[in-house]
Amino acid sequence: MNQFSQKKEKLFVVKIGGNVIDDPENLDSFLKEFSAIKSKKILVHGGGKIATAIGEKLGIESKYIDGRRITDDETIGLVTMVYGGLVNKQIVAKLQSLHCNAIGISGADANLLPAKKREVKEIDYGWVGDINQAEVDATIWELFLENGLTPVASPLTHDGSGHVLNTNADTIASVIAVALSSFYHTYLVFCFEKNGVLENIHDEGSVISKLTFNDYLSLKNSDKLFAGILPKIDNAFAAINKGVNEVIIGNSNQLSSLINGNRGTKISFE
Amino acid sequence: MNQFSQKKEKLFVVKIGGNVIDDPENLDSFLKEFSAIKSKKILVHGGGKIATAIGEKLGIESKYIDGRRITDDETIGLVTMVYGGLVNKQIVAKLQSLHCNAIGISGADANLLPAKKREVKEIDYGWVGDINQAEVDATIWELFLENGLTPVASPLTHDGSGHVLNTNADTIASVIAVALSSFYHTYLVFCFEKNGVLENIHDEGSVISKLTFNDYLSLKNSDKLFAGILPKIDNAFAAINKGVNEVIIGNSNQLSSLINGNRGTKISFE
Repeated sequence: MNQFSQKKEKLFVVKIGGNVIDDPENLDSFLKEFSAIKSKKILVHGGGKIATAIGEKLGIESKYIDGRRITDDETIGLVTMVYGGLVNKQIVAKLQSLHCNAIGISGADANLLPAKKREVKEIDYGWVGDINQAEVDATIWELFLENGLTPVASPLTHDGSGHVLNTNADTIASVIAVALSSFYHTYLVFCFEKNGVLENIHDEGSVISKLTFNDYLSLKNSDKLFAGILPKIDNAFAAINKGVNEVIIGNSNQLSSLINGNRGTKISFE
Repeated sequence: MNQFSQKKEKLFVVKIGGNVIDDPENLDSFLKEFSAIKSKKILVHGGGKIATAIGEKLGIESKYIDGRRITDDETIGLVTMVYGGLVNKQIVAKLQSLHCNAIGISGADANLLPAKKREVKEIDYGWVGDINQAEVDATIWELFLENGLTPVASPLTHDGSGHVLNTNADTIASVIAVALSSFYHTYLVFCFEKNGVLENIHDEGSVISKLTFNDYLSLKNSDKLFAGILPKIDNAFAAINKGVNEVIIGNSNQLSSLINGNRGTKISFE
């Protein structure tokens, strides 16, 4: 960027998962920190265990293959209610009480996240949606942000034929950040229960503060990294490759430090 | 209106209840007619029996006093999921498939419908919200409409202190119509299972095509009208009194005729 290039406004796309959503105290303190971010911001939430708990009461069995929920007819109804209704609206109401003008959405709303039902190959994932980045139009996202609104996205997309689809929240956060990176200087923040990418999974103090692509490849080859973190890192590099300025991975109870660059792992190509 | 007055664009605020929501075929054909309305439009949906059915499976007992649901802690969670999630997002996804750019919202989203928890007097209604019309800001509603979006509102409001509140869908439709009547020539359409206001409740052919306030008073005094319709009519006159141009009451399976003024009951002061 030279001195004449136009300076873009900052945008933070923050993703939270079950460790925040399932714990009311964690959620409250996280939302306080989130609402205090002065820049433009978007929150993407996953589902958490609450869908499984409500599903059990309703007699809907949770089925997983390779860590991915199989979304049959009953399950898509369940996650539509729980993610799109209960979790989303409770977060929105709390953010409103913190003077953050949140607007809860699913990918069906305003056609914000068009997707395709995943093709059945060896596994039938059911009502699971894959997003084609090129089909995501940033216009309405930008309209919301430019009018003082803070979108809160549930992990739901739609197929354009009347069906809601279940989609991974990390993917959704990444897709949104990429789509908006033409308009804003975009930071994608993945919050989870660890302090960042750890050199030693048993030592929360071993956070790698900056991870380049070369570092990643050598760490991956040495089998040092916890397997569960690999998809998140792959996702991070993919996002940077498509225009996101910075990806930060860190602990959901350290959000302001993650935003300020003082904690967590910063992912960059070089 | 004289020849020099500025002509406002038309807006239809359409409310549907359980007879449409609980029946997939009815809902599909209603949404086809709704999506075909060329003017700007907003859909407001109630809850239907589905919340009761899911609540029963979850062991949540439905409690009513004077026909109003008592919304305890468990029940507000239930209606937030079912109305704000399941019903709302399924309608939105279906409208999207009909090329209607729907956006599902609750009153918490974008602070669209701020409310107050109803004071406990003889009856504790629980998490039920009453809206103060003066606090409803039309700006974001207008932003949506002017950008080609069709809001789909669930019957939920919020108290500004982090709580979602359950609010009557007829009231919500009326409040929205009133708030937008400064900007649009506003029609408020209450759809239900009857063909309109009937002179004889047992004869669907006895629709009163136009009901003035004086007609209403005399019919009311003669005890001719079905008691269940009275709150709807009172609501209608209140809306007209506050600026709504026309209220139409009629059958949800005759939407296009209601819009065209060929069916249902037209409510006007004179």
